[in-house]
Amino acid sequence: MSRRDFLTQTGKIAAAYPAMLALGMLKESPAHAFDLKGSGKGKHIVILGAGLAGLTSAYELSKLGYQCTILEARNRAGGRCWSIRKGAEQHETDIPTQTATFDEGQYFNAGPSRIPHHHELTLHYCRELNVPIQVYNNVNEATYYFSEGKGPLSNKKVRAREIHNDMRGYTTELLAKAIDQQSLDTALTKEDTQKILEYLRAEGGLDIDKLYKASDRRGYIESPGAGDKPGKIADPHKLADIISSGLADPDFYNVAEYTYELQMTMFQAIGGMDKIAQALSQKVQNIHFNCEVTAIYNQEQGVKITYKEKGAEKELLADLCICTLPLPVLSNVQHNFSSDVSRAIDYIPYIATGKIGLQFKRRFWEEDEQIYGGITHTNNELTQIFYPSYDYLGKKGILLGYYNFNDKARHTGNLTHQQREQLALEKGSLIHPQYKQEFEKSFSVSWHKTKYSMGGWGLYTSATRQTLYKSLLQPDKQVYFAGEHTTYLNAWMAGAFESARRTVADLHGRTTEQHIPKTTPL
Amino acid sequence: MSRRDFLTQTGKIAAAYPAMLALGMLKESPAHAFDLKGSGKGKHIVILGAGLAGLTSAYELSKLGYQCTILEARNRAGGRCWSIRKGAEQHETDIPTQTATFDEGQYFNAGPSRIPHHHELTLHYCRELNVPIQVYNNVNEATYYFSEGKGPLSNKKVRAREIHNDMRGYTTELLAKAIDQQSLDTALTKEDTQKILEYLRAEGGLDIDKLYKASDRRGYIESPGAGDKPGKIADPHKLADIISSGLADPDFYNVAEYTYELQMTMFQAIGGMDKIAQALSQKVQNIHFNCEVTAIYNQEQGVKITYKEKGAEKELLADLCICTLPLPVLSNVQHNFSSDVSRAIDYIPYIATGKIGLQFKRRFWEEDEQIYGGITHTNNELTQIFYPSYDYLGKKGILLGYYNFNDKARHTGNLTHQQREQLALEKGSLIHPQYKQEFEKSFSVSWHKTKYSMGGWGLYTSATRQTLYKSLLQPDKQVYFAGEHTTYLNAWMAGAFESARRTVADLHGRTTEQHIPKTTPL
Repeated sequence: MSRRDFLTQTGKIAAAYPAMLALGMLKESPAHAFDLKGSGKGKHIVILGAGLAGLTSAYELSKLGYQCTILEARNRAGGRCWSIRKGAEQHETDIPTQTATFDEGQYFNAGPSRIPHHHELTLHYCRELNVPIQVYNNVNEATYYFSEGKGPLSNKKVRAREIHNDMRGYTTELLAKAIDQQSLDTALTKEDTQKILEYLRAEGGLDIDKLYKASDRRGYIESPGAGDKPGKIADPHKLADIISSGLADPDFYNVAEYTYELQMTMFQAIGGMDKIAQALSQKVQNIHFNCEVTAIYNQEQGVKITYKEKGAEKELLADLCICTLPLPVLSNVQHNFSSDVSRAIDYIPYIATGKIGLQFKRRFWEEDEQIYGGITHTNNELTQIFYPSYDYLGKKGILLGYYNFNDKARHTGNLTHQQREQLALEKGSLIHPQYKQEFEKSFSVSWHKTKYSMGGWGLYTSATRQTLYKSLLQPDKQVYFAGEHTTYLNAWMAGAFESARRTVADLHGRTTEQHIPKTTPL
Repeated sequence: MSRRDFLTQTGKIAAAYPAMLALGMLKESPAHAFDLKGSGKGKHIVILGAGLAGLTSAYELSKLGYQCTILEARNRAGGRCWSIRKGAEQHETDIPTQTATFDEGQYFNAGPSRIPHHHELTLHYCRELNVPIQVYNNVNEATYYFSEGKGPLSNKKVRAREIHNDMRGYTTELLAKAIDQQSLDTALTKEDTQKILEYLRAEGGLDIDKLYKASDRRGYIESPGAGDKPGKIADPHKLADIISSGLADPDFYNVAEYTYELQMTMFQAIGGMDKIAQALSQKVQNIHFNCEVTAIYNQEQGVKITYKEKGAEKELLADLCICTLPLPVLSNVQHNFSSDVSRAIDYIPYIATGKIGLQFKRRFWEEDEQIYGGITHTNNELTQIFYPSYDYLGKKGILLGYYNFNDKARHTGNLTHQQREQLALEKGSLIHPQYKQEFEKSFSVSWHKTKYSMGGWGLYTSATRQTLYKSLLQPDKQVYFAGEHTTYLNAWMAGAFESARRTVADLHGRTTEQHIPKTTPL
C-alpha cells in the first residue's frame, strides 16, 4: 500500500495524524519536534487572530515554507495570553478604557497563569523558544479558607492546613471506628484490614487509640524555637463547626488541588505568561495589528477576508484560512459557513470570568502572614485570592484580588473598574485588614466583556461534544478552525498549541496530498 | 522596679528574653530586627564552629561591638549547610577523600535543602543578606511510589497521584457506606451528615452513587488533546493490591507532605543552600579555618581554647565562648564542663543519614516522565529520590539518588563512594532505566561518618528533653552552647539561627548586666 493510497483510505488527514506518525511521515521525538515532510512553498495562508493558536500555526507553517499573514484586531499579540504591566489597556464593551499604572517590574497574568507539568507541548515551546519558567506555587497550606457570614468559624482566618488536617483526622477516625466495630463489609482480609487501620492512623494523624487530636500538622499558635520553646498547638476545630461554616463544602475544600490540571508541579513563564506569546510573535512575519475581521468568505477556490484597518474596509485573498477567533467574536463576523459550523459558532457557550490585580506597597501576606503564593478560598464574590508566585521577599507585589466565574463574574463584570476595585478592597479587607493601609492601584479584566475575546473559554457538555464540537473539527471548505475551543484542553494554553499543530498537520496534508475526501482541493 | 532589679529577680537571662522584649530592651519588628541595646565593646568572644549557628552568633555579636574569633576545623564555612559543586571534598572517617567533578553550574545540597515558609528567621536572614530564594517543589503528584519486590504492584512505576486518589476514593467510599448504613454514631445532625456525605463525594471523587471510580485525578493513559482526543483513563488499582504491595504504608504514603515542616510553600537558596552561609561569612571577620579544637577549659575568669592548626598545638584566650560543635564531635574534645553538660554531650544521639548526588547527561525525568522536582518514595535502600527544583528544562541535572536514614543510612555509609554509586545506580535503574545510558558522575555524603559533623542532627525524646537537653540551655560558666541541638527545630537551619539569637541575647544580657545569678560574672 502506497502512502497516498493509505491516506486516501484513512479519510480525513486529521484522523490520519497518528497513522502518519506510524508511517514515519512525522517524526515525534521526546522533545516534541514536529517534523512534517513536504513544502508549503507558494501557498498563502491567512490566519485570523494572533493569540497562541494563531501564532503557533504561523510559526509552524512558516517552517514548512508557507507564506502566512496574520490579521489581529488588537494592537498586540497573545490574545488572552496577556500579562498586565504599566501601560496595558483594557477595552470592555460598555465602560471606559482602563490603562494600567503599576510600578515597573510589577505584573499579573490576566489570562492563563499556570502551566501543568503534563502539558508537554506548552513546555516544549518554552524550551524551543527559550522562555524561562519557574514554579507556580498552586498548593500552599498557609493560605486561608474564609467563610463570610456563615457558622461559628465565619469571618475568621482559618489556615488551609487546619481544615485539611482536621477533616482528614475526623473522617479517618470515623472510618477506623466503623472498621473496628466490624459494622462495615470492607471485603478485605484480616491482615489487610489491620493495614488499612495503620494507613488511617497515618493519614489522619490519629493517636494510638485511633482518635483525632490536634497535631503540629495544623500549625502552631506559638512557634517552636530555641531553648525552652517547644511550641504550642491549638485545639482542632469542631467537626460540626467546620461543616456548618461551610468550610468542608467542595467550594472551599482543596478538591481543586486534586484536579489533574491543578496538581503540582505547576509552572509559569518568568516575567509574565505572555513572554511565551512574545517569543512566538518574534518568530513570525506579517502580523497585521489593528485589523478587525468583518467577513470570511469561502470562494470557489481560496478564501476572501474583509477587515477594517484604521476605519478603512480592506480585503485579503488567500489559499486557505485558519480562524482562531473566539466563537463569541466570530459569531459577529459575516461568513458563508455551513449551517452546522454556523450553529456551533453561535451556540457553544463561553465562561464568564474576571480577575483584578491589586498592587500593594508591601507584601504583607508574606511579611505578616507567611503566605508565599497559593490561593485563599472564600464564599464571597471574590471566590479566590491568588498570591504572586514570583519576587518572593520583594518590596511590592500584585495579588489577584478576585478570580471568579459565572454568576459572581457576571456581577463584578457589570461594575465599573472603580467599583470592582472597591468591592475587592472591601471584601479583601475582611481577610487582610492590611489592604486599607497598603493598597496602591488596581486593574481589572472581565473576560466576557472584553473586546475581541468576549469570554474566558469554551464550555462543553458530553452532549455538545458529540454535536456542536464535532462541526469545528473539519475545515469548512478553505477555512480551518483552531484554538482551545477545538480541543479537550479548554482554558489551557496547551489547547491553543495542540489545536495549532492539529490544524497545521491537517492543512499540510491537504496541500501536499491531493486525494483528500471531504475537503475541496486547492 | 528597675530594669536591673527585674532581671535579678527573673533569674537567668535566657528566660528573661521575652521579658526583655516586653520591657522594650529588645525591639522585635515584623521584619525580625534584632536590636539589642548596649555595647559589647572590649569583650572578646571565641566561637567554635563556622556553621550557621557560629556565623550568625558572630554576625550579631559584631553588630553589638564584640570582638569575635571563629575557629573552624574545615577549610570552609557553613558546616552542614553545604552545597556540592565541582571541587568539593568529602572527608569521611574510614574511606579515601572524594572530590566532586560535577559540571560547572551543577550542584546538590548535601545538607539542608529546604526552607519551610514558616521558618521566618531563615527567610529573614535571606532577606537581610540578599540571598535570592526560589520555590523548593516538595510536593509533586507525578513522582512515583515504587515498591521493590512486594505485592502485585511491585516493581511498577506507580505515580503518586494514582495512590493518593485511589486511597482517598476507597476510604471515602467506605465511610460514606458506613454513614449511609447508619451503623456509625457520628454525633452529627441529619443536615450535617448530609454535608459530610457531600464532602466525602468531593474529597474522594465519588460518583453519584458514592462509589469510587477512576477519574482524571489519577492521570491519563492517553492524554486529552485537540480534535477527537478526549483522553483515556485507566482503571484504579485494587485496594487489596495497593495494601499488599505496601503502597499505603506510612513509609510510602504522602504523610511526609502533611508534616508541618514539609508543607508547601518551601524554598531554597538559588544556586545552592550554602549561599546563605557564604553571605553570612562575608559579613564576619576573623574566621580561622583549618583550626581543629582539641580542648575547652573554663578558667577562673574567661575561657581557654586549645586547637591544632597545621599540626601545631595553639591556644586562644577569650572572655566568653559560644560552642556550636555538633555533640558527637564535641564529645571527643577535652573539657572541664559540669557532669550534667558532659553527660548531655556524650549521650544525646545524632541521626545516621546519607545522600548521593548523581549527575546525568540529560534530565530524562523531565523529558521522558514529566517529573519536575518532588520526591519518589521506595521501600528499598534508596528510601527517596529527590528531583532537582532548579534549572527546569535545562540540559543536564543532578538528582539525589538516595536520601536515607538510620539502618539504611548506616548500610550505605559502610560502603565506599564507588559502592554507594553502584547501589544507587542499580536500585535507581529499577525505577529509571535511563540511568544506565545517561549517568555521568556521583558524589556521596554519609553524615554520621563525616569528619567534624559525625551525624545529621540531634535526636530527642520527650524524656531527654527534660534531662540531657536542659543541661545545654545554660552556659557552663563561660561557655554557651548553640546549634540546632539546642532547639526544638532539629535538622533545620532555623534551629541554627534561633539558637544563635537566643545565645547572643543571653550572653549580651550577661555582659551588660552584672547581677546574673547562676553564671559567673566576667
